[in-house]
Amino acid sequence: MVLRSKSFARYIFQNQHKLIQQLLQTQQLQIRLCSGGSQQIQQALRVEEDDMPKISQAAPVAAPFPMTLEHAPDVGEQFRYADLSVRLAAPHELSPKPDTDDMAFGKYFTDHMLKIAYHKRLGGWQKPEITPMETLNLHPAAKVFHYAVELFEGMKAYRGVDGRIRLFRPNMNMARMNITAYRSGLPTFEGGELIKAMSRLIQIDSEWVPHTESASLYIRPTLIGIEPTLGVASSDSALLYTILSPVGAYFKPGSGGLKLYANPNYTRAWHGGVGDRKVGSNYGPTIHVQKEALKEGCHQVLWLYGDQHELTEVGVMNIFMLYVKENGERELLTPPLDGLILPGITRDSILRLCRQWGEFSVKEQKFTMTMVQQLAKEGRLLEMFGAGTAAVISPIEHIAYMGDEIHIPTESHQAPIYRRLYDTLTGIQYGKIEHEWAPVIA
Amino acid sequence: MVLRSKSFARYIFQNQHKLIQQLLQTQQLQIRLCSGGSQQIQQALRVEEDDMPKISQAAPVAAPFPMTLEHAPDVGEQFRYADLSVRLAAPHELSPKPDTDDMAFGKYFTDHMLKIAYHKRLGGWQKPEITPMETLNLHPAAKVFHYAVELFEGMKAYRGVDGRIRLFRPNMNMARMNITAYRSGLPTFEGGELIKAMSRLIQIDSEWVPHTESASLYIRPTLIGIEPTLGVASSDSALLYTILSPVGAYFKPGSGGLKLYANPNYTRAWHGGVGDRKVGSNYGPTIHVQKEALKEGCHQVLWLYGDQHELTEVGVMNIFMLYVKENGERELLTPPLDGLILPGITRDSILRLCRQWGEFSVKEQKFTMTMVQQLAKEGRLLEMFGAGTAAVISPIEHIAYMGDEIHIPTESHQAPIYRRLYDTLTGIQYGKIEHEWAPVIA
Repeated sequence: MVLRSKSFARYIFQNQHKLIQQLLQTQQLQIRLCSGGSQQIQQALRVEEDDMPKISQAAPVAAPFPMTLEHAPDVGEQFRYADLSVRLAAPHELSPKPDTDDMAFGKYFTDHMLKIAYHKRLGGWQKPEITPMETLNLHPAAKVFHYAVELFEGMKAYRGVDGRIRLFRPNMNMARMNITAYRSGLPTFEGGELIKAMSRLIQIDSEWVPHTESASLYIRPTLIGIEPTLGVASSDSALLYTILSPVGAYFKPGSGGLKLYANPNYTRAWHGGVGDRKVGSNYGPTIHVQKEALKEGCHQVLWLYGDQHELTEVGVMNIFMLYVKENGERELLTPPLDGLILPGITRDSILRLCRQWGEFSVKEQKFTMTMVQQLAKEGRLLEMFGAGTAAVISPIEHIAYMGDEIHIPTESHQAPIYRRLYDTLTGIQYGKIEHEWAPVIA
Repeated sequence: MVLRSKSFARYIFQNQHKLIQQLLQTQQLQIRLCSGGSQQIQQALRVEEDDMPKISQAAPVAAPFPMTLEHAPDVGEQFRYADLSVRLAAPHELSPKPDTDDMAFGKYFTDHMLKIAYHKRLGGWQKPEITPMETLNLHPAAKVFHYAVELFEGMKAYRGVDGRIRLFRPNMNMARMNITAYRSGLPTFEGGELIKAMSRLIQIDSEWVPHTESASLYIRPTLIGIEPTLGVASSDSALLYTILSPVGAYFKPGSGGLKLYANPNYTRAWHGGVGDRKVGSNYGPTIHVQKEALKEGCHQVLWLYGDQHELTEVGVMNIFMLYVKENGERELLTPPLDGLILPGITRDSILRLCRQWGEFSVKEQKFTMTMVQQLAKEGRLLEMFGAGTAAVISPIEHIAYMGDEIHIPTESHQAPIYRRLYDTLTGIQYGKIEHEWAPVIA
């Protein structure tokens, strides 16, 4: 079932509830959409998605972060999916679902949320609960408001062409979230248990997972420190919660590739800091610079580092460059995970796919603006693109850098690599390509 | 009035109480120091405390930040103290006041708080309101929880020896808060109006201002972005609030000077970042490092920067070093405001006082760990101390640095400078020394 027409897509989206039922019946699947599916989730997650034997045999890739983290002894009790309680929204509390055309990123939210409290004094993690979407009531001295004791992940649930709902490498997000929690003085947790609880949440709000390949359900697990004391110290109380938001494209389509603002006066992250951890502190300070980029007629900031103006990230994405080496061979570069770079899961997936393809060399290596300028001048710069969960892959068309206007011919090629990567990744995510990376959860 | 002579300067300083009274009388100013209400606050604040003509004529000090900031045209309406509404707590809502011995930093809070909402769609800043202390009810997608869209100030109200309540250079906090808001994509506001509203809050909770010189009422103005959307962008809704907390000493007394943990693998701030703005993002990432310092038997982190291991800050304070130059003269150093350093108000006050004293040279200049090691070895290192609102001045006794254990003889001197600065600053704050820096608000 391929949805090319917009009106057809809208029809599907508005009638998704009935269509799902029909589809499930024809496929003889017995997925109960709004009841306890823990067994099914556990089965789906049994697919180990983080070690991909086929690819890693072809070309080993260093893990961007440890997939398991030992809990500190003083963290206390862990929460368990088995203890999850569910309080459903009353019919009058349900929100209307937005039109696909109006799905600005992270503007609409589903009817329910997942909450898990942590209180060291009560022994550790408390029981998880799914509740109607509701405000958080926090003490005004909660550390999250003062010292940015907060971190998050970005994930998506995809409605496949078969009507089933998939995640994408969720164990990677859990592993990254745990090392970030550790770095933030917040309690670590069992990622597998959170995936199960979030999957249950998605099942309950499954009608919110858009029936189109041009949209998905964005998943935002968030961990905040809520202890109401003003000392700059670890928070002995925390709240782990997950909200869901149906999203269209992060960037507005039809505008061609990205125009980037590269101003060496601003730095995103630095050695000895937290640039490789998904903490709120990496984002707040970028907002002013992003405003400046918009004023300069650019879409996003290209973040540079150091005297050599190394490229590090673009907006909230990792950056890739495909170019022709002096010997005529093609090479794909992305900056290495040296502490300045967020270890992106899309980044990792791209590296693994390209190394599996084996058609060009793939390197995690620093590159500078001088190199970009030189390659562009010599016609050896082929493609540049950003990569991340929200935007998937975004082609770059232009860089404004210290008075120079550099054109990147990313979209001038017949069959660009970025497009093939986009099609492969979304193919896996939307169930067109069966793959261990995309476990079915509903 | 030009102050060239050291002794004359000292005379002025020591007799400023009488001199100011005379000055006020000759200028026919009618500052009523101790009665209720807005008129009095307005009058008290009419004393411009940020340009100190006498001192700056003698030895000009560069302003650490602009004292006024033009509001961007799209900020909209400003709030006004005149529109303040007050809803008092019912008798059963009042909290018992803690014993002075149990006043851990920022653990207890007063009965009321100040709140001012900002909604761009509603035209800008809304009317200020004082309410009973209560939880904040925020959407779980509020930007403050995800992207650290948050900033704060630290101020104190002091119960003087005359029973009256004083602030300390509040206009400086307001100016710094506004440049921080601008850098954070949050709306700016009229600092003078906020001081008046906060002063009213303190008057209402005035019984919470401790009647002792060993404690004070900590004031925490906080500005958070509350727009419930997940895009990394300016927040079109914000909440400016102030809570009050009676506090004792930030560091436990009786433990001698601070032991510092100096690990060059961690960096607090960097060029092109926000190290010179009071945003939450500067604090969260330090908590893990502070935990490491405690594990190593140290009290606080000494933050180093760059290959030369420049000293930048200590814990949440600015750092000062008094040493003997090769020509035998004493010199006080503190790192310059080059973007890495928070422009502290205690820092600025120390520089102004020491330049006014004129007894040793005072420089805002980088210094490195190699220099500290060398001076300590040669017996030329006299004192090191941290300075900030919460801790006032904290002597440093010891630095653990790359296997070296450096002893700092700060407390070995007969009449250390840090102690004189402490006595002078607290003397001003507690009304023992009448001074323009400490306007009476109740």
